[in-house]
Formats: sequence, C-alpha cells, structure tokens
Amino acid sequence: MSIETLSGQSEKAYALLKEDAQKILNLIEVQMSNLTMPQCPLYEEVLDTQMFGLSREIDFAIRLNLIKEEEGKGLLDQLEKELSALHEACLREKNK
Amino acid sequence: MSIETLSGQSEKAYALLKEDAQKILNLIEVQMSNLTMPQCPLYEEVLDTQMFGLSREIDFAIRLNLIKEEEGKGLLDQLEKELSALHEACLREKNK
Repeated sequence: MSIETLSGQSEKAYALLKEDAQKILNLIEVQMSNLTMPQCPLYEEVLDTQMFGLSREIDFAIRLNLIKEEEGKGLLDQLEKELSALHEACLREKNK
Repeated sequence: MSIETLSGQSEKAYALLKEDAQKILNLIEVQMSNLTMPQCPLYEEVLDTQMFGLSREIDFAIRLNLIKEEEGKGLLDQLEKELSALHEACLREKNK
C-alpha cells in the first residue's frame, strides 16, 4: 500500500509537471500569434521567468524523489525543443 | 505505513520549501550588503523571479496535497515580512 501510494504521488507529480510545461507552450503560442510585429516578439523575458518557475518545480520534485533527474531533464528538453520549433515557424510566417 | 510515508513526504516538502525561502533571504541579504549605492539596490527583478520560483514550488506542493494552502501562504507571508524588515534596515543604514 505504501509503495502504491508513493508511486501514485510520483505519477501525479509527473503529470502536473507535463501539464505546466504545456501551459508555458500555450502561453508562448498565444503571445506569438497575437503580436504582429515584423520580428517575432521579444518574449524572452516572459519565457525565462516561466522556464525558471518550471525548473524550480522539477527540482523540487526530484529532491522529494517523486521523479528521476533524467525525467526532469527530459521534460525541460522536450519543452525547449517545442518552443524552438514554434519560434522558427513564427519567424518563417513573418518573413513571408 | 502508507500514512506514515506520506506524512514523511509532507514534512520533507515543507522543510525543503522553508529552506528555499531562507536561501532567497540570504541571497537578498548578500546583495544588499555588498552594494554601496546611496539608495538600496534595485534588487526587485532578482527578487520577483526568485519569489515566482518559490511560489511555483509551493503551488506544486499544494496540488500534490503535500502541504496545506494556508501553510504555503504562511511561508510566503513570512518571507515577505522578513524581506521587508531587511529592506528597511538597509535603508536606515544608508541614510545614516
């Protein structure tokens, strides 16, 4: 029972972190599609703060042994990849 | 056993959050005492980012039912009180 409960907590922790990563992606997507500047918006500041917040959450989950260090790194890497794809798509769109 | 394990996790979560709050306080203290500008340094940006990170951790712990909402709010309130006391002491020092 105790192992089940803890593994339930781990799953929940991982799911919450994935959800938060998705929220950042959505936020940035909205920002990009709503700004019509010639260059893509200087969204770096918002992004940096959001990424910092997520990395604090991930670090906290690792210190509580809820997720593995690799899992946390994987979440951040995946988000960075998706953000970078979004940014490139945005640049292509504006340069048309 | 399962309750014990979960309550152990809760205690650990709370202790980690307190530790992180203390780290922010120390960081700000070092910043203030090392800068010799006539006014206290514009440390707001660093502070905002750090506070945002901590509030994300606290929110995460609440969503995992590791700490209560009041406990989380208490941690942030306490830190804000200590930071404000530090800031006032710093202003008094510089105005001497």
